[in-house]
Amino acid sequence: MKDHLNYTMLCDFYELTMANGYFQTGLADQICYFDVFFRNVPDGGGFAIAAGLEQVIDYIENLNFDDEDIEYLRGKGCFSEEFLTYLRSFRFTGDIWAVPEGTPIFPHEPILTVRANAIQAQFVETFILLTLNHQSLIATKTNRIVRSADGRPVSEFGSRRAQGPDAAILGARASYIAGCSGTACTLADELYGSPAGGTMAHSWVQMFPDELTAFRTYCQLYPHNATLLVDTYNVLQSGVPNAIKAFKEILLPQGITSCGIRLDSGDLAYLSRKARKMLDEAGLTECKIFASNALDEYIIRDLLLQGAKLDAFGVGERLITSRSEPVFGGVYKLAAVEDKEGHIIPKIKISENAAKITTPHFKKVYRLFDKADGKAFADLITLHDETVDEDKPLELFDPDATWKRKTFTNFTAVELLKPIFLGGKLVYNRPSIQDIRAYCAQQVGLQWDEVKRFENPHNYYVDLSQKLWDIKQKLLEEQGR
Amino acid sequence: MKDHLNYTMLCDFYELTMANGYFQTGLADQICYFDVFFRNVPDGGGFAIAAGLEQVIDYIENLNFDDEDIEYLRGKGCFSEEFLTYLRSFRFTGDIWAVPEGTPIFPHEPILTVRANAIQAQFVETFILLTLNHQSLIATKTNRIVRSADGRPVSEFGSRRAQGPDAAILGARASYIAGCSGTACTLADELYGSPAGGTMAHSWVQMFPDELTAFRTYCQLYPHNATLLVDTYNVLQSGVPNAIKAFKEILLPQGITSCGIRLDSGDLAYLSRKARKMLDEAGLTECKIFASNALDEYIIRDLLLQGAKLDAFGVGERLITSRSEPVFGGVYKLAAVEDKEGHIIPKIKISENAAKITTPHFKKVYRLFDKADGKAFADLITLHDETVDEDKPLELFDPDATWKRKTFTNFTAVELLKPIFLGGKLVYNRPSIQDIRAYCAQQVGLQWDEVKRFENPHNYYVDLSQKLWDIKQKLLEEQGR
Repeated sequence: MKDHLNYTMLCDFYELTMANGYFQTGLADQICYFDVFFRNVPDGGGFAIAAGLEQVIDYIENLNFDDEDIEYLRGKGCFSEEFLTYLRSFRFTGDIWAVPEGTPIFPHEPILTVRANAIQAQFVETFILLTLNHQSLIATKTNRIVRSADGRPVSEFGSRRAQGPDAAILGARASYIAGCSGTACTLADELYGSPAGGTMAHSWVQMFPDELTAFRTYCQLYPHNATLLVDTYNVLQSGVPNAIKAFKEILLPQGITSCGIRLDSGDLAYLSRKARKMLDEAGLTECKIFASNALDEYIIRDLLLQGAKLDAFGVGERLITSRSEPVFGGVYKLAAVEDKEGHIIPKIKISENAAKITTPHFKKVYRLFDKADGKAFADLITLHDETVDEDKPLELFDPDATWKRKTFTNFTAVELLKPIFLGGKLVYNRPSIQDIRAYCAQQVGLQWDEVKRFENPHNYYVDLSQKLWDIKQKLLEEQGR
Repeated sequence: MKDHLNYTMLCDFYELTMANGYFQTGLADQICYFDVFFRNVPDGGGFAIAAGLEQVIDYIENLNFDDEDIEYLRGKGCFSEEFLTYLRSFRFTGDIWAVPEGTPIFPHEPILTVRANAIQAQFVETFILLTLNHQSLIATKTNRIVRSADGRPVSEFGSRRAQGPDAAILGARASYIAGCSGTACTLADELYGSPAGGTMAHSWVQMFPDELTAFRTYCQLYPHNATLLVDTYNVLQSGVPNAIKAFKEILLPQGITSCGIRLDSGDLAYLSRKARKMLDEAGLTECKIFASNALDEYIIRDLLLQGAKLDAFGVGERLITSRSEPVFGGVYKLAAVEDKEGHIIPKIKISENAAKITTPHFKKVYRLFDKADGKAFADLITLHDETVDEDKPLELFDPDATWKRKTFTNFTAVELLKPIFLGGKLVYNRPSIQDIRAYCAQQVGLQWDEVKRFENPHNYYVDLSQKLWDIKQKLLEEQGR
């Protein structure tokens, strides 16, 4: 079992030099609002899946500099003793709102907001981004792969190619949330409850005098979970015939008809069709065919389009590293500060690149669902003190082309950002991983097929309220000068 | 500080089902040899850099199933009580040889060999692969990026985009080994000694009433380490002029002339030339210009070719995830077993794909250096009991086109695989990270420029001894039937 971790020191060093600066210059108590948001969906998809909040909660609750940390920081020679003393009792006492894990999320909307004094709000940046970026990346990729399998189970098999131990364990967690049926990673099951499973490596087959002996032995050991790897020598000449022989000799006499073979190389469409025929002719119609070997959503979709007779998939490196796009670009940007009287002063970050301009202020996000079919049709970002009245017609407009306006009625509006910490106290009832997984599947189901397309998906609307748009515009005009 | 970790349970579940199988069927004491090797250099490069051995050592030394682990495994319902009792006292008692961290490595040669009983040798597969794959990936990518910077320091800035906490920390470690001058990751410095540094975020500048105040404050706080981020508003209109003002007001009167600015957006070639001119005209010729923002080896090379006036680089997501190729495909393959008398019986894994055929037997790897110029010219894989005599001419041949033969004299032969564990005991004197880093730089320096080319590098020779080639050929002929 993995021991408890304290990731307090997992921060960019500049978080500490800035914190020391705020401490020295009297800005320590300045209340700030920071938003986490992202700008592009990986792989050109229509939406991402939020994940990682559970680990953010663990992190915040365990924030604590120990003696070794302080000693290390003292050795750097750039921090005042007063600041080091302050760090010794450092805790997070602010507020955090976030979208629940498993929620489909869209570019430019806040998925987590921190309200805290300048030191605290700045300090947590690195770990929050790292965690949400990593797990949202893997959840987003997994959801694509799971959707391509069209109802067939997909297992996460990638530990050996993961980018470090946590990438294996937490990647397996994120992949389970987003729809994998399980993982090969034993520790991910023990820690997070993503069911671990697996069968045999080629080396198992090679350890015995011959393939048939290896298969027989396995069936004797695990009659209720006998999935045999049939490509060590030759799939159709020896692997499948030997598997059939072992199943018939050992499983059928025990009345066991559920079993499986795994194909890990070669032309999976061709081999699976041939193997299916051989198994069926042998009366093993319940024998499942698993496929693995450098799979991803495109290859799985192609295999199924070509009539591959595959019942389940094991996906490794292309899932656990999100190989086609291994970076989820979540950022952490200042959205507002409070003055001494507690008034919120919105802040904007200008950029020559329009897509990099931030949306200022303390905000809410509403997801709007059509009552007629239950589907989500837009997200609306508002000021923190605005409310959407479901009983009144709602006019939305394109924030870039404001003449494009449309009025909606007969909708429900659900607030996406939930309070997680208030005054440093956890107020969120952490859902089980099974509940998160079910919620994710249900919420993805409320997205239009047009948004779920792999290529060129429909651009889901993420609009601003008129009030918020006006404030943003005013700040742009003031600062653009 | 991060607590001690036990990663025993970070294994593919099939390692356990196979281990239980070996235990139940009397194969537990069968001595096996497994090799780790890889097939392709990421990014089409000429060589990779080995890294991660230190964490493999930690893992092996800490292997231990605790009560919780055993309870979890019992709950899976597929392991015998005898096996669970066996696991309770499970330790690694075998041998491991490996190439030192920082060594340039080539496809198809063993970079780590395990000799142990079947259960132990199989069980350690997942973690060994995961660790070597991850750190070798990041070290390999980093070395490309560092070489592109042509002597200028490169800092690792990627924690927030890393694939989980370990990817940030261990990625920073690997990047330091491969030539980064430091990291932004504080914990990586505390744990592994990769120097942590950093300056300010845009939010620092936004927290003050204006940019000049933000810069002045920073220079007052950190006069000896004042690198100012100049792109929050407008680099040339405000950022650089304000930085010059702050340096002149605060640093120069203290006699401090070393300082820096950082460019994090826009056209880095253009902006750096303009900024350099402004700084020089202000007499700040010692002010360094740092660049960051989605850099990699190609962008850095292009910037320098275009005459960008850049003195140092911060590289984030494209390094810490090896974005262009985020998978290092190291594999773990059975190479031999021992019979009851201790004779080594070579094993081969055939594949229809010729590149996937393994090289059998317990082996050594020699790196051959030309005495005339000191450069490495080939690696030679031999049987474990062969020796290369430097005083005799050595004939090498292409293992795929055996008529291509060449005889070498005047060379030195260095064995690459060092004993790490013998009989479960650590026999390796772990080098410091600084020594590993220096060794890496020195060894990369012994490679030909033709091998170091980014695209279409010279294909470095990795040849087999005649004896080894004969054994491989014999096994291929026997099993190919």
